[in-house]
Amino acid sequence: MEAKHAVEKSIELIHNSKIAYLGSIDNKDYPNIKAMLNLKNEGLRKIWFSTNTSSKRVSLIKNNSKACIYYADTENFMGLMLTGTIEVCQDEESRQKVWFDGAERYYSEGINDPDYSVLCFTAERGNFYHKQSNVDFDIKL
Amino acid sequence: MEAKHAVEKSIELIHNSKIAYLGSIDNKDYPNIKAMLNLKNEGLRKIWFSTNTSSKRVSLIKNNSKACIYYADTENFMGLMLTGTIEVCQDEESRQKVWFDGAERYYSEGINDPDYSVLCFTAERGNFYHKQSNVDFDIKL
Repeated sequence: MEAKHAVEKSIELIHNSKIAYLGSIDNKDYPNIKAMLNLKNEGLRKIWFSTNTSSKRVSLIKNNSKACIYYADTENFMGLMLTGTIEVCQDEESRQKVWFDGAERYYSEGINDPDYSVLCFTAERGNFYHKQSNVDFDIKL
Repeated sequence: MEAKHAVEKSIELIHNSKIAYLGSIDNKDYPNIKAMLNLKNEGLRKIWFSTNTSSKRVSLIKNNSKACIYYADTENFMGLMLTGTIEVCQDEESRQKVWFDGAERYYSEGINDPDYSVLCFTAERGNFYHKQSNVDFDIKL
């Protein structure tokens, strides 16, 4: 499989995924994983999630920004892992970017709820696999 | 939610999961995630997977044994994360433990295929969540 084809299939996989798995590193240097709602991306380079400001994830990320995001279509033995860095964003533009109708269920005070934060991920490398085929590629601006 | 109830629900979640997500740390200290077939466990303390000896995962684990395993029922907002250590096992007992009918599809030479390895995970800590409820617990022998 060529890298170009892997990138196309990767974008398709992201668009078909309801859930993304976020990998981070905790304060004892263990990897951590959490399922996140797949909300918003710009190609493979930028991915955004919403989360609670008070959550464990937010404090971990502030301590160690290295992260990965994994998308899987396990029925078809297909997966994408993006590695890069993640940061906590609380600016207006980021808040608007991932806000959706019904998000009041999670953040009762609406888009300005102080417990609403956005996680902004920037990918550096990708790995896409489908069955036995496996491709690594760089992700550039 | 009490820890005892969280442990019971965690074991039930493992038994209902086809897939487990394995978190490891790569040689540049980034978290990595890979979907694995959920094959065998003894309570929450010991979890086994099969993998290719030649796989990237095997060399990463030999370099850094810190790992996590994540199980999710995303429809019901339920998840379990176990953190601990993982090692590569190639002894006869481990090979027998996770071998299953049809595994020849992956390891053409059968149970003694040199490309067949077992990953043995030992959990130290657990975190179980269901909707807004979230419990941390220790896992002891």
